[in-house]
Amino acid sequence: MKNQTVNATRDRVTIRDVAHDAGVSVAAVSKVLRNAYGVSEVLRTKVETSIEKLNYRPSVAARAMRGRTQTVGVLVIELSNPFLAGVIEEANATLAKSSFKALIGIGRSTSPIEASMIESMIDNRMDGVLIIAPRISSKVLERYARQIPIVVIAHHEPHAQTYDTVNSDDRRGACLAVEAALRSGYTDIAMLGYDLADSPPTIVALQREKGYLDGMKAAGLEARIIRLPLVGSDRRAAINDFLALNDRPRAVFVWSDLDAVPLINAARMSGIRVPEDLAIVGYDNSPMAAIPLVGLTSVDQNAAELGRTASEALLSRIEGRKDARHVLIEPRIEWRGST
Amino acid sequence: MKNQTVNATRDRVTIRDVAHDAGVSVAAVSKVLRNAYGVSEVLRTKVETSIEKLNYRPSVAARAMRGRTQTVGVLVIELSNPFLAGVIEEANATLAKSSFKALIGIGRSTSPIEASMIESMIDNRMDGVLIIAPRISSKVLERYARQIPIVVIAHHEPHAQTYDTVNSDDRRGACLAVEAALRSGYTDIAMLGYDLADSPPTIVALQREKGYLDGMKAAGLEARIIRLPLVGSDRRAAINDFLALNDRPRAVFVWSDLDAVPLINAARMSGIRVPEDLAIVGYDNSPMAAIPLVGLTSVDQNAAELGRTASEALLSRIEGRKDARHVLIEPRIEWRGST
Repeated sequence: MKNQTVNATRDRVTIRDVAHDAGVSVAAVSKVLRNAYGVSEVLRTKVETSIEKLNYRPSVAARAMRGRTQTVGVLVIELSNPFLAGVIEEANATLAKSSFKALIGIGRSTSPIEASMIESMIDNRMDGVLIIAPRISSKVLERYARQIPIVVIAHHEPHAQTYDTVNSDDRRGACLAVEAALRSGYTDIAMLGYDLADSPPTIVALQREKGYLDGMKAAGLEARIIRLPLVGSDRRAAINDFLALNDRPRAVFVWSDLDAVPLINAARMSGIRVPEDLAIVGYDNSPMAAIPLVGLTSVDQNAAELGRTASEALLSRIEGRKDARHVLIEPRIEWRGST
Repeated sequence: MKNQTVNATRDRVTIRDVAHDAGVSVAAVSKVLRNAYGVSEVLRTKVETSIEKLNYRPSVAARAMRGRTQTVGVLVIELSNPFLAGVIEEANATLAKSSFKALIGIGRSTSPIEASMIESMIDNRMDGVLIIAPRISSKVLERYARQIPIVVIAHHEPHAQTYDTVNSDDRRGACLAVEAALRSGYTDIAMLGYDLADSPPTIVALQREKGYLDGMKAAGLEARIIRLPLVGSDRRAAINDFLALNDRPRAVFVWSDLDAVPLINAARMSGIRVPEDLAIVGYDNSPMAAIPLVGLTSVDQNAAELGRTASEALLSRIEGRKDARHVLIEPRIEWRGST
């Protein structure tokens, strides 16, 4: 009777209830909870049986004082880029297999918001942070990585000491795009990038420019990079200006499907035939590129592999690995009607 | 000298350091931190100056013992639906204006995962939870809502007592879709839905079926609902079967752009002219519907208004409101070439 009354007037079952039910000390329950070394199977079974029976959930605030929260923060630039959704969903699924929950924050491509989200994740005693395409500098990331395990996707910093990076080999991917255009018979191949003046040197777009230059140089062709206004601004006018150029190239590699899909649309809607008048290769192989009516040839980064590899790296960091790993994932071309 | 040594060997500045620097008691600092009644401006200024100078950040675990964490959990079915990305990004922006951070969890359309995420958000002492399109039952939500302020989007439960709902008026939206088809001169109008056998009665698709029936009845026309296999399964074959029907309707209202975009693609790719042979109206006005090459007429739910209204409701619940509010937002038709 007494027990029932106590349970009804209390919000939650406590560690004391578990100890009492299992007939062991509170310290013993605590040992099981924090996976301490030297816990016997008998003790573990006793305690886990009571935990299940009483439906005991240690509060995260309390667990945080002891050890892991089994929670990982994911900091992402935005959600409306469908390529990123694919990376996050795979990371989420991989973490779930190891009983980790992902909690996702949006950085909005603004360093102070990113910093504040990372600090909030540290304050929340998360076990690690997975970051996708940050604007924040490597130096600041190095500092945070001394406080919490960090793995970064879409951030080229192969010399980072305190955190891991997992990237698509963006330089190789852009080179593949040039090779694809060459194989289709084009030689007048431009690249459509964007104004990088305000961007950190770690961004993927810079690697893609390098890869484009590699590909053109290897073929002995003259390179020509045309830059759209900054990310986030309205690029429609700039895309129309490109299409109206007197010396418009015969083929164009676009740094991302974010701009390649509007380009193929604007071209077709204004009577420019793709690929007959203008061949287009995009990057990211986004769901929109795959719509048959769009049919955009695009470099595929393998979003699932990026998400999976980065999560596994983070899990091994959480397990105690200290050396930095920098992984490049091989991209491939998805051929469609635009080339 | 001593102070420097202490700071270098410690992870973070504590409340004691702040009290010492400000020349006040720890209790006084605590009062300022929890915005206690009766704190003088002089005391507040002293303490805040020291907080800034020492770069003191109270840990969330510690703050959670006192009061708010300024963190809100967002639980969403998935990220790859671009319509949901729009809702979340607006919710995130609205919460940020009130100095709340959003941390997003993915429920994967599975009640146990959803429940576990909500419990994790409660354990993390989040101040409230915003839920989008849950599978979990209203009854279970009612129970969680006694532990934490909850607002739910895309969940029709106008009689919920302990939580708020914010929905597009899905029934009205489907009726608008029928009216749009009627206005374009069609009378042979079917609806493409999906198998609802496994779904909770609160889902949007059910409301959209009701609205379709409303619209057809008001026009004195015979209704015909064709159901695709369950969400998540491969519907391509079913879409092709629909297109191959001997008695294919002249116009079709599709419950979501998730199926309407593949339908318009499959139709056009197999030589069926849209709208000449088949008129199509979708739902969600997703970014893919807006691609000129797709050009899908679609019902717009106003993702931004859903996200904003729901966040504001959650903020007012966090402020102490207890009465339940159930908001319906008026949808509208976005006309494009498919009708």
